[in-house]
Amino acid sequence: MDFELTATTPAGERFVRLAAEHAPILAERAAQHDREGSFPFENFDDLQESRVMAAAVPESFGGIGVESLHDLMVGMSRLGRGDASTAIAANMHIAGGAVVVRMLRRSQTSGDAATVDTLEWLLGRLGAGEITMCFPTSEVGTDLASPFSEVTPTDGGYLLNGRKVFGTISPAADLFFPSVRIADGNGGYLTGTVMVARDSPGLEVADNWDAMGMRASGSHDILFKDCFVPKDRLFGVRNNYGKVGRGFADFALNANLPLISSFLGIAETARDIAVKTITSKRKGPKKKLLAERVPLQQLVAEMEIDIAVCRSLIDRVGRLADAFLERYRDDDAPIEESDSLMKEVQCMKYVVNRKVIEVVDRSMIVCGGMAYMNKHPLSRLYRDARAGPFMQPYAPYEAFEYIGKVAVGLEPILDR
Amino acid sequence: MDFELTATTPAGERFVRLAAEHAPILAERAAQHDREGSFPFENFDDLQESRVMAAAVPESFGGIGVESLHDLMVGMSRLGRGDASTAIAANMHIAGGAVVVRMLRRSQTSGDAATVDTLEWLLGRLGAGEITMCFPTSEVGTDLASPFSEVTPTDGGYLLNGRKVFGTISPAADLFFPSVRIADGNGGYLTGTVMVARDSPGLEVADNWDAMGMRASGSHDILFKDCFVPKDRLFGVRNNYGKVGRGFADFALNANLPLISSFLGIAETARDIAVKTITSKRKGPKKKLLAERVPLQQLVAEMEIDIAVCRSLIDRVGRLADAFLERYRDDDAPIEESDSLMKEVQCMKYVVNRKVIEVVDRSMIVCGGMAYMNKHPLSRLYRDARAGPFMQPYAPYEAFEYIGKVAVGLEPILDR
Amino acid sequence: MDFELTATTPAGERFVRLAAEHAPILAERAAQHDREGSFPFENFDDLQESRVMAAAVPESFGGIGVESLHDLMVGMSRLGRGDASTAIAANMHIAGGAVVVRMLRRSQTSGDAATVDTLEWLLGRLGAGEITMCFPTSEVGTDLASPFSEVTPTDGGYLLNGRKVFGTISPAADLFFPSVRIADGNGGYLTGTVMVARDSPGLEVADNWDAMGMRASGSHDILFKDCFVPKDRLFGVRNNYGKVGRGFADFALNANLPLISSFLGIAETARDIAVKTITSKRKGPKKKLLAERVPLQQLVAEMEIDIAVCRSLIDRVGRLADAFLERYRDDDAPIEESDSLMKEVQCMKYVVNRKVIEVVDRSMIVCGGMAYMNKHPLSRLYRDARAGPFMQPYAPYEAFEYIGKVAVGLEPILDR
Amino acid sequence: MDFELTATTPAGERFVRLAAEHAPILAERAAQHDREGSFPFENFDDLQESRVMAAAVPESFGGIGVESLHDLMVGMSRLGRGDASTAIAANMHIAGGAVVVRMLRRSQTSGDAATVDTLEWLLGRLGAGEITMCFPTSEVGTDLASPFSEVTPTDGGYLLNGRKVFGTISPAADLFFPSVRIADGNGGYLTGTVMVARDSPGLEVADNWDAMGMRASGSHDILFKDCFVPKDRLFGVRNNYGKVGRGFADFALNANLPLISSFLGIAETARDIAVKTITSKRKGPKKKLLAERVPLQQLVAEMEIDIAVCRSLIDRVGRLADAFLERYRDDDAPIEESDSLMKEVQCMKYVVNRKVIEVVDRSMIVCGGMAYMNKHPLSRLYRDARAGPFMQPYAPYEAFEYIGKVAVGLEPILDR
Repeated sequence: MDFELTATTPAGERFVRLAAEHAPILAERAAQHDREGSFPFENFDDLQESRVMAAAVPESFGGIGVESLHDLMVGMSRLGRGDASTAIAANMHIAGGAVVVRMLRRSQTSGDAATVDTLEWLLGRLGAGEITMCFPTSEVGTDLASPFSEVTPTDGGYLLNGRKVFGTISPAADLFFPSVRIADGNGGYLTGTVMVARDSPGLEVADNWDAMGMRASGSHDILFKDCFVPKDRLFGVRNNYGKVGRGFADFALNANLPLISSFLGIAETARDIAVKTITSKRKGPKKKLLAERVPLQQLVAEMEIDIAVCRSLIDRVGRLADAFLERYRDDDAPIEESDSLMKEVQCMKYVVNRKVIEVVDRSMIVCGGMAYMNKHPLSRLYRDARAGPFMQPYAPYEAFEYIGKVAVGLEPILDR
Repeated sequence: MDFELTATTPAGERFVRLAAEHAPILAERAAQHDREGSFPFENFDDLQESRVMAAAVPESFGGIGVESLHDLMVGMSRLGRGDASTAIAANMHIAGGAVVVRMLRRSQTSGDAATVDTLEWLLGRLGAGEITMCFPTSEVGTDLASPFSEVTPTDGGYLLNGRKVFGTISPAADLFFPSVRIADGNGGYLTGTVMVARDSPGLEVADNWDAMGMRASGSHDILFKDCFVPKDRLFGVRNNYGKVGRGFADFALNANLPLISSFLGIAETARDIAVKTITSKRKGPKKKLLAERVPLQQLVAEMEIDIAVCRSLIDRVGRLADAFLERYRDDDAPIEESDSLMKEVQCMKYVVNRKVIEVVDRSMIVCGGMAYMNKHPLSRLYRDARAGPFMQPYAPYEAFEYIGKVAVGLEPILDR
Repeated sequence: MDFELTATTPAGERFVRLAAEHAPILAERAAQHDREGSFPFENFDDLQESRVMAAAVPESFGGIGVESLHDLMVGMSRLGRGDASTAIAANMHIAGGAVVVRMLRRSQTSGDAATVDTLEWLLGRLGAGEITMCFPTSEVGTDLASPFSEVTPTDGGYLLNGRKVFGTISPAADLFFPSVRIADGNGGYLTGTVMVARDSPGLEVADNWDAMGMRASGSHDILFKDCFVPKDRLFGVRNNYGKVGRGFADFALNANLPLISSFLGIAETARDIAVKTITSKRKGPKKKLLAERVPLQQLVAEMEIDIAVCRSLIDRVGRLADAFLERYRDDDAPIEESDSLMKEVQCMKYVVNRKVIEVVDRSMIVCGGMAYMNKHPLSRLYRDARAGPFMQPYAPYEAFEYIGKVAVGLEPILDR
Repeated sequence: MDFELTATTPAGERFVRLAAEHAPILAERAAQHDREGSFPFENFDDLQESRVMAAAVPESFGGIGVESLHDLMVGMSRLGRGDASTAIAANMHIAGGAVVVRMLRRSQTSGDAATVDTLEWLLGRLGAGEITMCFPTSEVGTDLASPFSEVTPTDGGYLLNGRKVFGTISPAADLFFPSVRIADGNGGYLTGTVMVARDSPGLEVADNWDAMGMRASGSHDILFKDCFVPKDRLFGVRNNYGKVGRGFADFALNANLPLISSFLGIAETARDIAVKTITSKRKGPKKKLLAERVPLQQLVAEMEIDIAVCRSLIDRVGRLADAFLERYRDDDAPIEESDSLMKEVQCMKYVVNRKVIEVVDRSMIVCGGMAYMNKHPLSRLYRDARAGPFMQPYAPYEAFEYIGKVAVGLEPILDR
């Protein structure tokens, strides 16, 4: 009895069960895609078909209807057990669906009929498993809150120019939602998000993702050159350029939390590999089962402890986030409360990112030199796990500054 | 907004609120008792009066009626913020109350009228705040599962002989419930618990507690010399001598979980002291507020992270324990499930014990050399915090072996 | 064969052997002084008699003539094995002797006959074991480089006013050498050191040292109120007010290095206690020697590793410092080189301070609950060890900033 | 001024200087060989030509004549700065040369003329840079002390059968020296080493090395199938089968110590990359030099501290080993002393292996997401560094047991 994380809602339970069913199949395909750096299109076909990709889409639109972010986190950790590259790529799309649901509700409340129409159309496509979304936000030389990618007004809409990096899931994407800036007329900028179809002239997916790990995530650069964006495809314009975390918390929560929990699956799989190895191998002069060596038991204990820590943090932050999103269904939360929650998120992120790396490392120690070979799954998990601390919006030392500033009651604008 | 732990039931909420109200008063008295090594009788008068000591006693008997172990854990962490010595001493009694409630239910189910009578009488006294209980279990040179203290049959009952150590709350105790062994007639032993009134001839509280920390917990040695125990005051006889954790999980859960969570309060207070210090002091040539120094913000962040980890583990294990206790209201759990839960408990215990020490340590770094002075509260918290890893039933390296053995599917009997 | 640190010079070998002989006697006396917070005058009588207090004083003046700072570090670690309070108090005086020797050489080179006379007189007294020196430098609310204690000109000399804290060895001191500032006539300050006899009117040793550990070090406050200082008793006037580490590296090296290495002795003794305990105790159902339990062996290994790390750092920095002091016998070193060496010193200090705490902590785990009792020597070592990170000139987070700034080639002035 | 490790002998200085000169050229070639998993033959041509490969070979035979193991360690750390794969492969050969020198001396002392002849011939070839040696010792399913590879007597010599793994440098090797066992006639085994030329029938280098890191080290499997070994090519027969560390310490010291120190070079290069990055890049709204951010300075400080720790351990163990090898030039050391030194070696190995990984990890944090790309050198260093803990003879948890057993005075035979 492992006391793994479990869902808190019926829809969540369905999603988690489905995700768990995909995991072993993803795992089988992972080694080859890792070696080749190829994109696992077949995984996404499967995930669309099972509607895992439509986890957050309401049942009325054909999805699973998961409303609990906690449960999305749990399900993504299950996918992560199979193949972390696929999990983080799928999360980009699944989280996007959750954000679309939130946006629809607000648009309905505010009576913005045009946006309601667009979003309902989109949810229909997502629920039918027809469309894959990519939300490229990172760029070289700047932070998430200060995109250099820019839309400038033109007849009937805008021209988009810019270059995004880490465009996870881009090979499969039909629609791209890059974050952009718009001149505010006073020498400054506003921020927003645009929707661009894959076949738009000027959009290019660079096919240049070649990283140490997460090799099957398709995180290519995405280039936009004078790419036309119709007027009604610019959303969420806000006056928060340069202010990390000073805005609509929905996207940050929905995108980041299940992304972080995906890494838990790596640790759980690494632990399983270690336990399976030592409960099946006998070695040494006495041919004792490796699992009977106390020092190996203790190494497994250290993994168990780290996994318990990660699960606990994910469980708690998931519950806190659900309560927060419920409290602020219709309005933005007060910035202090949003910061306080994001502080907890960053605490979770830091620990999960780090502990997952350590669990895989210990698993390698348990399994011995064979774990260093490319044909051993731990060598992939070790490289995949290291992606965690690079995930947005903060490097670990920045997260520390952010957490500390919130904790002492200062405005969490980093000194940089 | 601190996202501190909160109760999950209405009775729990009442308990947590009351405990929080006691904390600042306990804190005021803590320094003197620490210096003198004296027992804070006035704290226990207060805690009896407010019925915090009767937290787990049903309302029908005059108590607060907390049924959730999770909520007991949360409330004890609040007491721990004020004075950890008092919290762990109170926990001995409060947890005892929770166990009595469980025993009553089982005695009712099994139709053991005599025990029902005794326990109802006891709950009445507890609910009225008239009686304080002490459950001494530790002895020198053996483990919890193998007491040397022994009852031998005599006319109308037993004679009890033995010496207990770490008899926390003993100065205030009216009733003692030492764990004992009884010869099983085959050269082996059974285990059980006896109830002995303070004024029983042969019982002596040694007044010899003189430790580095937890100095106000009254954890004296307790000696029993031919101490008469009436026949009906021997409870819970089981055939599990020498088998740690192989038995009635109720006591272990009820006693240990809130004990562990009490230490969280130490960390929370240490963090508060550090934050208060740096948000009120200006130093250096520029007279900058200390809180504005990024390195100090980062130290606070490390504390926040550790506190988030501890809270998450406590929250999760509390919920798991509540579900477990609900599943096994009337019967003992299967040993595998009991072990699996205890594995999670030991993961929590290890991390909380260690992280609390580290939080206090960092708080001392933040506050500087003054924190090393005896007049500074952190010097007491530093010594109190170190008690954690000594808490029963396992030293850290033993906990690792236990966790590891359960995780690889071996019977968790330590190799010692 | 323990591969403990050994001296590199014959005089060093004599000193180290003598220090090692004192250690067990200091250890016997340590518990009582710790409990009472009393000053171990008898230790200092012994150390004067054996000339350990005159370690750095040339043989021609009656001392041992240790010229190697490395060897002073080794010897102080031996004293630290017996009683760390005594070691750090003795170091204040012994290091002072080493500085006096350096100052004499420079005064001879520069032809400053008056200072030569004073210093030769002083060395004679030190070599005869007649005089004990105290160098109070710390003050509340400022750093080492910016003393508030000030001398103002008066007839025939100066009036000294100020309050020093952490005046280690003050109860036994005959001569005090507080760091001071002097107005430079342009609204700023110069720094210097004055020599004040204990019986000078206006000097008061406050008898108020009451800390968690290092309780026998006599680190009282020292007050100077209009205390007269003859003109020729102001030394080393420099234009470096407010600039930590921007000056005469001799004092910092001579005073700090053996201070840091004293803590190694704490760790070595804690390790010895742990090893002695488990190699002499049998426990558990099988009455196995504790030392035969693999998990306890592993804990001992962690201690061994930490001790090896500390020894290696001390050994290397000691050699680097000796080479540095030899290169710059007559002149100040270039500031970049001085900073580079001080970077290595701060690396050593951070690690030794922290690892010593961890070794004592692990030793407590090995020894079990009894180690938490005040009568157990580890409870004193645990409290003594925690003094390390408070030692001047940097808190750990400041040391990190200092090290980092030097490493990236920036001037190491802290951002505070 | 970096206070890098320096040689203690003139020959050592020459070797270190030469090694340092090779490093940048190795670094240029490293990326491509890593990507392709190809063997850098051109590196070994260069290293033979400069006589770095003949570091330990006496000058009279054409080598550099380094007699200090300390200095070999320092030089190998320099090579490791350029390319760790090449360094560990070169070390196999260079350490072999040092062992040959030791063997020659003993053979001369004992008057074994035939062996003297063979070894002098060999040293001549090594000094001329004509021959490359490989010492394969690892096998699957057993430890270093218990080879399964076996020689069985046949006419004029032996037949060798077995399979070695981790046959580092095998692509370039002319002579192989696998460790073997020989039946002792009583159902047990003796151990020894044989010399086999590359073109011997039955010897096959498998060309199957495909690991996460150290990809250019050519650590292929090596198969021996009825491979004939002339009678006089079996050396060092000892009765120590199954006893790790119970034998000729020369090989263990000479082979392992510079192997471990090679990893230091990885850390030093990672640190240099991080420092270079932040001292040349400006980022953020204020375009502040990254090096001016205090949190980045602190991360660099953590690297500096870890590097100082590694250097200190290497420096100290190198000096201890030189003294040991000098004490036991002609005879085996007493086993207790040999174990005590090996304890220090294992302490060093554990810390260096771990700290090097951590330094590279922190360097990645400093450099940000780009460091995760395959084209960034840190992604290679991260994978290379992880090889360390797999290095013979002990996994980290085994090293802990070994160290602990020696420290408590038990025979260090692992409980496995």
